[in-house]
Amino acid sequence: MVDNPYYTHEFHGDYELVDIGRLDLEEGGVIPDCHLAVATFGTLSPEKDNAILVTTWYSGTHQIWRDAYIGPGHALDPEKYFVVVVDQIGSGLSTSPHNASGENAGIAMSRFPKVRIGDDVVAQERLLREHFGITELQLVVGGSMGAQQTYEWAVRFPNRVRRAAPIAGTARNTPHDELFAKALIEAITSDPGFAGGEYASNADVADGLKRHAGIWAVMGFSTEFWKQEVWRALDFTTKEEFVEGFLEPYFTQMDPNDLLCMAWKWQHGDVSRHAGGSLEDALARVTATTYVLPIDEDMFFPVRDCAPEQQLVAGSELRVLNDVLGHLGLFAVNPEFVPQVDRHLGELLGTKV
Amino acid sequence: MVDNPYYTHEFHGDYELVDIGRLDLEEGGVIPDCHLAVATFGTLSPEKDNAILVTTWYSGTHQIWRDAYIGPGHALDPEKYFVVVVDQIGSGLSTSPHNASGENAGIAMSRFPKVRIGDDVVAQERLLREHFGITELQLVVGGSMGAQQTYEWAVRFPNRVRRAAPIAGTARNTPHDELFAKALIEAITSDPGFAGGEYASNADVADGLKRHAGIWAVMGFSTEFWKQEVWRALDFTTKEEFVEGFLEPYFTQMDPNDLLCMAWKWQHGDVSRHAGGSLEDALARVTATTYVLPIDEDMFFPVRDCAPEQQLVAGSELRVLNDVLGHLGLFAVNPEFVPQVDRHLGELLGTKV
Repeated sequence: MVDNPYYTHEFHGDYELVDIGRLDLEEGGVIPDCHLAVATFGTLSPEKDNAILVTTWYSGTHQIWRDAYIGPGHALDPEKYFVVVVDQIGSGLSTSPHNASGENAGIAMSRFPKVRIGDDVVAQERLLREHFGITELQLVVGGSMGAQQTYEWAVRFPNRVRRAAPIAGTARNTPHDELFAKALIEAITSDPGFAGGEYASNADVADGLKRHAGIWAVMGFSTEFWKQEVWRALDFTTKEEFVEGFLEPYFTQMDPNDLLCMAWKWQHGDVSRHAGGSLEDALARVTATTYVLPIDEDMFFPVRDCAPEQQLVAGSELRVLNDVLGHLGLFAVNPEFVPQVDRHLGELLGTKV
Repeated sequence: MVDNPYYTHEFHGDYELVDIGRLDLEEGGVIPDCHLAVATFGTLSPEKDNAILVTTWYSGTHQIWRDAYIGPGHALDPEKYFVVVVDQIGSGLSTSPHNASGENAGIAMSRFPKVRIGDDVVAQERLLREHFGITELQLVVGGSMGAQQTYEWAVRFPNRVRRAAPIAGTARNTPHDELFAKALIEAITSDPGFAGGEYASNADVADGLKRHAGIWAVMGFSTEFWKQEVWRALDFTTKEEFVEGFLEPYFTQMDPNDLLCMAWKWQHGDVSRHAGGSLEDALARVTATTYVLPIDEDMFFPVRDCAPEQQLVAGSELRVLNDVLGHLGLFAVNPEFVPQVDRHLGELLGTKV
């Protein structure tokens, strides 16, 4: 276990840590005492029929959803819905390599078992059912790795999911994404300070985390983002200042093992394993009304990788989001981004199912 | 100086090392005794009016041009033209960090001075004039960093260049490319075996060179290349085998300091410095008939970065090359790539100027 002030209420505001007990993992490992960090917004109706699940992306938590996507006036409106954001395993808030202690002491740091998207979804289903009594979701929505979880939900629990909105992500990870995540992993693990995952502090791995940020700079935004110097809107005067003042601090505050846990999970996201490797058969299970929302300038979940999956989901629609930021449009920095998400999610929530 | 069997005639076939003497560099450094590796094809006419200059890209040499682009039946036809391929400074064949010795011993390895695209072009002009008596070029053509040199030629020596064909590269490096090259640089320099540039063998930096190859895997090819598993055409059965059996050996045989010399040069390519920072004014100097040839699937020299530059060159044409390989289509692995290059270069050479 490593102390890291980033993963605290001070930085992440209100959330509840819910103990869901032992979690047996797809890859054979076990989390003896799994806790999920959960932030909720709104009130669950007496019929428990107004719940929305939000899943989180690589390095992201409920914080960005709370700050940018959820609230009065948004499609994710707490006055109407009970919105549950569950931070993924390895996020640093839920059970993760850096915080494993007590009953989980045996899986701390480098000993943390491999976790799959499916494990998160199984854990979330248990949490919703046992802790909140929720067995039906009006909507599952998430971006990037959150989209992977959204697809997993729709394929694994079709009867629980009325609507699904995977944003900027795929049901089966692409080979290009697998290689991209590999480059990110190697940027971290190659740092001598990483020490095979047994560093004393994330600061020991600062160089690796900065290189990891540098690769995000190349792939996370679009070429056009850099050409148009969109970062000036964030009050930086050079792109170097933006990288050093925004991207690097964003990642260096995080835990290396936690990022690696998520990166491996991202690499191996694949709903087709539910249907013997057939993506077509797996996505044929989806009964949720589904809007697939790629971002037009995304360098690694391009529209043409998302559209073929959408076409395998009966009755689904492709709704392309426009953002020069590319994949990291998810940061909601562009004031024109969230209104697009709201419009599509609003229409989706307005469909009768 | 480091022994490296890759940079020999055994691996690179015939080429001549031409001593062009002292080269004063733009950034203030000096190469006391600069040698350029030169491979020629065909015969210079008595009037010395049939010369074509080919410039080289990052990590590439005359070898790929000889093997894939030059020969009877190609636009670069030695039966008609005297084709001169000059390996860039830092290529490992021309004067480079790893081979600096004798009079250049003082600039070996980590002490090698910063070299700019303009230094290469000045050196090439001297070589062509003093060694071959060539003062007029029917065509300058090069890909990627070779395109940077092509633009530099057309801007710096407009009266010497009748036609120009920059392939998959830009006149002014983009900020995204600067960041991409930075990620490549850091993959190498972060290897403890790099030892500040004073390693005893490139093998000491194998891990860093492999990470460097891993980033090329993400950016060098297109997402579609990986999705379509185009690497199967090269007789690999998994993408991991392709990375480990093709991309990694390609780079690990090379010299780290040489790659870094080229990477810095690539980052700083910019013809606008000839016109006080105005790209428009710089490209207005071009009198060569110019075809700009981006590759449609290029992840880091996308068509939309090349087209605006083309529009600044009077009377030029945009000729887009189609290749799912993306930037590394330049490797000429796709049998449909070189015929496109030949068609455009053939038409360009057929224009009266």
